[in-house]
Amino acid sequence: MTKLFNDPARFTEDMLAGFLDANSRYVAGVPGGVVRANKTAPGKVAVVIGGGSGHYPAFCGTVGPGLADGAVVGNIFTSPSAEEAASVARAAHGDAGVLLTTGNYAGDVMNFGLAVTQLKSEGIDAVYFAVTDDVASAPKGEEAKRRGIAGDFTVFKCASAAAEDGLDLENVVRVATAANDATRTLGVAFDGCTLPGADHPLFTVPEGHMGLGLGIHGEPGVADHPMPSAAELAATLVDGVLEDFPENASRRIAVILNGLGRTKYEELFVVWGTAAQLLRDKGFEIVEPEVGELVTSLDMAGCSLTVMWLDDELEKYWTAPADTPAYRKGAAVSAPAGEKRTDAAADAAVEAPVLAELSDDDGRRCGQFVARAVTAIADMLADAEDELGRIDAVAGDGDHGRGMVKGASAARTAADAAVAQDGGTASVLAAAGKEWAAKAGGTSGVLWGAMLSAVGARLGDTGTPESAAVAAGLRDGYDALISLGGAAPGDKTMLDALLPFVEDLERRVKDGQSWQDAWPAAAQVATDAAKDTAQLRPKVGRARPLAERSIGTPDAGATSLAMCANTIAAVLTSEGDK
Amino acid sequence: MTKLFNDPARFTEDMLAGFLDANSRYVAGVPGGVVRANKTAPGKVAVVIGGGSGHYPAFCGTVGPGLADGAVVGNIFTSPSAEEAASVARAAHGDAGVLLTTGNYAGDVMNFGLAVTQLKSEGIDAVYFAVTDDVASAPKGEEAKRRGIAGDFTVFKCASAAAEDGLDLENVVRVATAANDATRTLGVAFDGCTLPGADHPLFTVPEGHMGLGLGIHGEPGVADHPMPSAAELAATLVDGVLEDFPENASRRIAVILNGLGRTKYEELFVVWGTAAQLLRDKGFEIVEPEVGELVTSLDMAGCSLTVMWLDDELEKYWTAPADTPAYRKGAAVSAPAGEKRTDAAADAAVEAPVLAELSDDDGRRCGQFVARAVTAIADMLADAEDELGRIDAVAGDGDHGRGMVKGASAARTAADAAVAQDGGTASVLAAAGKEWAAKAGGTSGVLWGAMLSAVGARLGDTGTPESAAVAAGLRDGYDALISLGGAAPGDKTMLDALLPFVEDLERRVKDGQSWQDAWPAAAQVATDAAKDTAQLRPKVGRARPLAERSIGTPDAGATSLAMCANTIAAVLTSEGDK
Repeated sequence: MTKLFNDPARFTEDMLAGFLDANSRYVAGVPGGVVRANKTAPGKVAVVIGGGSGHYPAFCGTVGPGLADGAVVGNIFTSPSAEEAASVARAAHGDAGVLLTTGNYAGDVMNFGLAVTQLKSEGIDAVYFAVTDDVASAPKGEEAKRRGIAGDFTVFKCASAAAEDGLDLENVVRVATAANDATRTLGVAFDGCTLPGADHPLFTVPEGHMGLGLGIHGEPGVADHPMPSAAELAATLVDGVLEDFPENASRRIAVILNGLGRTKYEELFVVWGTAAQLLRDKGFEIVEPEVGELVTSLDMAGCSLTVMWLDDELEKYWTAPADTPAYRKGAAVSAPAGEKRTDAAADAAVEAPVLAELSDDDGRRCGQFVARAVTAIADMLADAEDELGRIDAVAGDGDHGRGMVKGASAARTAADAAVAQDGGTASVLAAAGKEWAAKAGGTSGVLWGAMLSAVGARLGDTGTPESAAVAAGLRDGYDALISLGGAAPGDKTMLDALLPFVEDLERRVKDGQSWQDAWPAAAQVATDAAKDTAQLRPKVGRARPLAERSIGTPDAGATSLAMCANTIAAVLTSEGDK
Repeated sequence: MTKLFNDPARFTEDMLAGFLDANSRYVAGVPGGVVRANKTAPGKVAVVIGGGSGHYPAFCGTVGPGLADGAVVGNIFTSPSAEEAASVARAAHGDAGVLLTTGNYAGDVMNFGLAVTQLKSEGIDAVYFAVTDDVASAPKGEEAKRRGIAGDFTVFKCASAAAEDGLDLENVVRVATAANDATRTLGVAFDGCTLPGADHPLFTVPEGHMGLGLGIHGEPGVADHPMPSAAELAATLVDGVLEDFPENASRRIAVILNGLGRTKYEELFVVWGTAAQLLRDKGFEIVEPEVGELVTSLDMAGCSLTVMWLDDELEKYWTAPADTPAYRKGAAVSAPAGEKRTDAAADAAVEAPVLAELSDDDGRRCGQFVARAVTAIADMLADAEDELGRIDAVAGDGDHGRGMVKGASAARTAADAAVAQDGGTASVLAAAGKEWAAKAGGTSGVLWGAMLSAVGARLGDTGTPESAAVAAGLRDGYDALISLGGAAPGDKTMLDALLPFVEDLERRVKDGQSWQDAWPAAAQVATDAAKDTAQLRPKVGRARPLAERSIGTPDAGATSLAMCANTIAAVLTSEGDK
């Protein structure tokens, strides 16, 4: 919901003042809206866009060279008045007439229409044009009744580029008409938006559903559908827009996947991956697509797909440069570029290191044990993912469970592959460690990777390791973590379980126990130590009040380390029983 | 929350694939992330940025000329692995070394640090640098422990521009260090974000509160505060950042007001208006501020203020051009611009029309009655605002109540001013109508404005209007609405109350009643007719299923018209009693 305002009744005025301040190199304020900071050049048609506000960057964010000459700024979701439209048009007008254009809404049609009458009475050549791209708002054959949504942008862009190109008013209107005739949009809403100062959203969408056929003024969709996957949504949008295919349409298309405000770029890109593929599968060539927020509806959740079928003229204007507060297009940098890449992946590759050591039968047997242990750990972590995430979320980002699962799962695959290549203890541990670090990411991934590799390096690929070597290997693993420099014991990290574990195992082995016998007891020490981390306050990587908040909750990394130690103990026990 | 995904476990891969597809003219994919579509030119240091994803446009959205050469893309909020960082750096590297830089998080520090070790072992000159701009994450004197948040952008921007400028690796690192030393950020959170596929947000902020000192990985703030106004928030952010003032700081500053994802541009501009003023009041000159989304946290609600104190070198690099998928700077358009505006408001002005007719005593008395009626209407509407908004929200955007209040309130002021200038009936009605239309905006604003003006034109400024003239004036008002072309009777608009009202009044006046006697009964007819609009389906300006949804609810415009008619009836009755 809209959280930041002073007096809700003055929200638009305050917004506009801040916008003008931040963008004074592009725009100047006039009664009713904004115009470019520079006057319209002689001979150039002025294009004035507009409508209510709440749609940023539409409309004032796209005033500047290559796009609009002015934008009329109404209150949130409310048409500006005829006087405001006339005022902005008067200021934007050079000497070659003005096109006023908005989405097709009754209020805009009336007010901008009246403004045109007023401007003509003052001797200014003016034309009004309404965009009608929303296929959900009226059926085929009643195109003139449709609303204007994200297709506003394709029409405004082409008409503005045509004006920049020197076309006269009649021809700018012709280009706007052609762009509108060639543009179709279908949108969906997942959640409504809230007006500044209001205590409830303009509409809600039932949990697990979406509204098909959104409006951009907080209107709900025209039909409820179950919430789809991103790929299913892409198919729905592509099919919906293509069904309304203009006659004699070309195979070259401009495409916008527009976010309504709360549906973020990451999500849009996931949808775009499928949408682009579907469009190409149908034989279309996509020309300079836009994936992002061009016509929003405050913080409404939702998105829309717009297609403009291109002819040579529309393609020229769609791809023309622009330089506005919120939309810029065209190379602004003249620095020398290197040659075009042909095989980017090859640029990133490095020779795979050769696992040189040759294993023997004992080494291979131990390698197989390592692989079984890694498998058991991966299975255990898959079950524990949610619990670890919950613990981690108390003072962090809750990603520990997912990271451990990703790492252990990749390590299992790598360990199995190393076993299949007759790898010994060190090779299997190194392969597991490398993949754990590579796939888990995060702090715990790199630490687990370094620890496994360090243990393996001590144990080698041949023979059955002595218990003293196992203890020394674990100490090496601990030292590897310390040398990475992230933390020290007492910092509420996995070290606080690992150090007691290593020390206990060292002591028992020194006292004559085998590492297999010592392990379960050491694992219990790790478990107790992990629980005791609840008393600690993290000292690295967390803001301090977050650290306070975590007191009473054990560290997720220490907890998962103890769980892994116990899992290996269980493997040892079950294999000892066999 | 994050709504769009396929397999949550593959969200980042899907996101990256869509991003690369949409931006193939800028970037190419490599294992671990993205690099520019063109190879790094000989002699140019490569700058590789990164960290976890979920921060778009950070980090992959800012790869391109003038900004980064590559971005490592980890899973959501999770550091990429050392192998991934090394892979991207290898691909981005030309022949002059590579700067790897991230925000200061333990996972990034370890993984990128290990990547530097790996790159050096391959003969690539590499340096790692961590950004530490978040003043809330550690106190003064412990700057090195601070997290990197939106200040990532100032550091990445300056270091990248320095590399583009031909500086060697040592000097690029020097510029990164200088930018980081000069940069401070303070942020706030209003609401948490939800990971793809998760069923609850990573944190919540209590209703009516905000978290001061946000993180960009779903971490809550470091302290709860009551939710402030936009102006209060601006003061909190400005004071918090300036308190941490670097020594010997200059008076020229680069500033970012960064949105976290759900806090939209409109809100940011409201905050910016105050923040910019406060900074200028303290003697700072703001150089090319950025107000918008540069480092987000999925759809988290919140924002942050970043200040970078500029010296000549940093200012040069801050203002340098850039051309990337999500951030472009510098003029891309070479079209001839008109001269710089000096008085934009004057460009928009037109001579005020002269209200020519001279009133007489009777006309002035009637004008005073009109002003009293408008005042009564304005008072009534202020009370009815919420109710009208609720009715309108059933099938629309819920703005009818606010629009009527704005219009009537402006009309009251204008009518009073016209009375003070001895205006007659027509002048007062015309002034009220003009201001109603100008200030209300929307459809109802222009209709009410046209109606009042049309009635006034019939009644003139002199004499006491005959009842037949009043009836004819109301018919003129109705005709004015029809000629605006938005609707016809039966379309579920104010016409459906207005026409029965006018017809009833005409009939009664024709039958010999005075307009004052006829009015209350006609107003009752309007009330009944407004209620009957609940049976109608809107035919214009609404998508059809929305129209279905509105059946059972009366039209807001018809309802408010009937309310106004009844208010005038009440004024007539009370004045008749006197």
